[in-house]
Amino acid sequence: MELSLGSILEARERLRGIARRTNLVECRSLSDGKRRVFLKTEDLQDTGSFKVRGAYIKIASLSEEERKAGVIASSAGNHAQGVALAAKRFGIPATIVMPAGAPLAKVKATRELGANVVLHGSVYDDAYAEARRIQEETGATFIHPFDDPMVIAGQGTIGLEIMDEMPDIGTVIVPIGGGGLAAGVASAIKLLHPGVRVIGVQAAGAAGMKASFDAGHIVSLESAKTIADGIAVKQPGELTYKLCKRYVDEIVTVDDDEIAQAILFLMERCKMVAEGAGAAPVAAILCGRIEAEGKTAAVISGGNIDVTMISRIIEKGLLRAGRVSKLRIVMQDRPGQLEIVSRIIGSAGANVMAVHHDRTDVDLDIRDAILEITMETQDREHALRVLEELRAAGFEVS
Amino acid sequence: MELSLGSILEARERLRGIARRTNLVECRSLSDGKRRVFLKTEDLQDTGSFKVRGAYIKIASLSEEERKAGVIASSAGNHAQGVALAAKRFGIPATIVMPAGAPLAKVKATRELGANVVLHGSVYDDAYAEARRIQEETGATFIHPFDDPMVIAGQGTIGLEIMDEMPDIGTVIVPIGGGGLAAGVASAIKLLHPGVRVIGVQAAGAAGMKASFDAGHIVSLESAKTIADGIAVKQPGELTYKLCKRYVDEIVTVDDDEIAQAILFLMERCKMVAEGAGAAPVAAILCGRIEAEGKTAAVISGGNIDVTMISRIIEKGLLRAGRVSKLRIVMQDRPGQLEIVSRIIGSAGANVMAVHHDRTDVDLDIRDAILEITMETQDREHALRVLEELRAAGFEVS
Repeated sequence: MELSLGSILEARERLRGIARRTNLVECRSLSDGKRRVFLKTEDLQDTGSFKVRGAYIKIASLSEEERKAGVIASSAGNHAQGVALAAKRFGIPATIVMPAGAPLAKVKATRELGANVVLHGSVYDDAYAEARRIQEETGATFIHPFDDPMVIAGQGTIGLEIMDEMPDIGTVIVPIGGGGLAAGVASAIKLLHPGVRVIGVQAAGAAGMKASFDAGHIVSLESAKTIADGIAVKQPGELTYKLCKRYVDEIVTVDDDEIAQAILFLMERCKMVAEGAGAAPVAAILCGRIEAEGKTAAVISGGNIDVTMISRIIEKGLLRAGRVSKLRIVMQDRPGQLEIVSRIIGSAGANVMAVHHDRTDVDLDIRDAILEITMETQDREHALRVLEELRAAGFEVS
Repeated sequence: MELSLGSILEARERLRGIARRTNLVECRSLSDGKRRVFLKTEDLQDTGSFKVRGAYIKIASLSEEERKAGVIASSAGNHAQGVALAAKRFGIPATIVMPAGAPLAKVKATRELGANVVLHGSVYDDAYAEARRIQEETGATFIHPFDDPMVIAGQGTIGLEIMDEMPDIGTVIVPIGGGGLAAGVASAIKLLHPGVRVIGVQAAGAAGMKASFDAGHIVSLESAKTIADGIAVKQPGELTYKLCKRYVDEIVTVDDDEIAQAILFLMERCKMVAEGAGAAPVAAILCGRIEAEGKTAAVISGGNIDVTMISRIIEKGLLRAGRVSKLRIVMQDRPGQLEIVSRIIGSAGANVMAVHHDRTDVDLDIRDAILEITMETQDREHALRVLEELRAAGFEVS
């Protein structure tokens, strides 16, 4: 089955008043002399991701009778909330099957949208099998997360909105997991503006669409490992593969470290909370994986990231960039030593954040003490400079 | 000196193409049957806060000769970057004096905007005195962070934008520190729409404007302690006091815990990074300190929060809400015990996040072991339920 421009235009009409027409916001920290980068903020969409668009259009395509029997989906992520909200808008029952270890915040959010949440099995495949079983029992319609022409048409409305708001956009970057978002956006854009480049971004640990592109047929990965859980998909869909193959110009990959850095960058510089999948296009720009010129739009597909994950990314990111360093200094345990160390660090322009003083370490000479200092520096080079100055003053630092 | 509606309208014209006309974004998690809450996203303004508006309008009011001599300001925060950017737009020199302990990220950001950053003294007052000294030496114009009619007119454009975009807004909530933002926004709104309520929010530890309201004259606090550094001001300005007294209907306060919870709420539910001052209006809504009905706009004044602060807020917030709990279980050190504990926790619907097992604690009986478990629960009540079930199974839990 093909996807027509008409079906995407129709989806746009149906979504008026249902899905937000999210803003394109310029991120000046990503813009430079050659390019200007605009973020399509689907993290601000209802339920925190673009998924409600496709789910709503799929339900809209069902008959009265089909709707009465309700819908069912299996997902531990954004698709769950997207389907739940779309079903709520139609006033029909929705059942979402999640693996038992699903984050409680997502279970709660999906229940709050009125869906019946069934916890089953330990991985996604178990939940999927259970959803199919319940579906046969109840006659509910299974809503596929990506490989469905109606779902793809719904996601494609994002492409229309980008071109409406900024007709002179030259490049559009979209994350790719199963390929529903990319297939929809790329179709919408190429059918109207064939000159606009569409670039897909996959997580290096889950690059099934790229592997399929390279092989010339659909490839199933053995595993899909990435912190970007929204695009952790082993195998693209048949329709999404076909449409991406036709309309996506190129696929690049980014690894988990690069995605984590992009999440941190978006928080610090753009004041946006993006999940891994949503940050992937920005990661590709930051790492120079995409040569963008002129006006570029990056689709931030969602913002549903666990706050504990944010916490970990911040700490790891600061350490890696050399903006926070931990020093271990062995020094003679006599008055004034701490003062000297503090003065050296301070006059080098670094800030002391925490100090831990220990005289009980078993490896220490009886007259020595260990000082552990956490300090804030501008970057790795700055941290090394502080280290050298402490060593020059006779301290044993590691 | 008074502030005319004309000067605010004039400021709006001058700011076209200079400051972003930021969006009003509905936060559905704050909306309910009675009210709809819209966030004025000044965190997405250039430099991450509203400050560029006032600084630009102030510089625009200077003569050619005055501009040539440059501008100077003292600030460790948003005012620094606002002045630096505004001066850059005019192509004139800017000197910013900051206390020596200022966050390196802010020093760097201000320098990147082309300003000459001088680090002096250890607290704001030292930096202020130094700025005044340099000003006398160089003849540069000192740009006050809030008590200046031109600065206030610039900030007032936010009020015009809110009413332009949503003419049926009923209540506008603004954070108050020195009062520049509140004086500007309240003047703009009341001069055009006297029926709209304007409510100010101060940090409980720095509520100088509220104290002044209550006393009927300007009061200077002995200290200004709050995590919301953008509104940590001891004393309101003369003009800002006068204008707030006339146009602000009411001032409420929120404490640091409430502000931290609002920061977390904005990240999780609205995908927005807000600094303490920016989150204060949302804190006031969340705590029921403001009875909002109908359409309400909350000004998120800025998003410049240190990522290490975000990290701390996340961890503290999850512990407080009972969404993460640390259990300490004393148990007999024999096989199968960990399995029993895991099963009880799992079947109660909680998730184990981390396990630490210790047999070396000196207070322990030789045959006992300590198990420290970090688990994810829905809320405090849920955590207590898990605790009870473990106790019922004979474990000694704290």
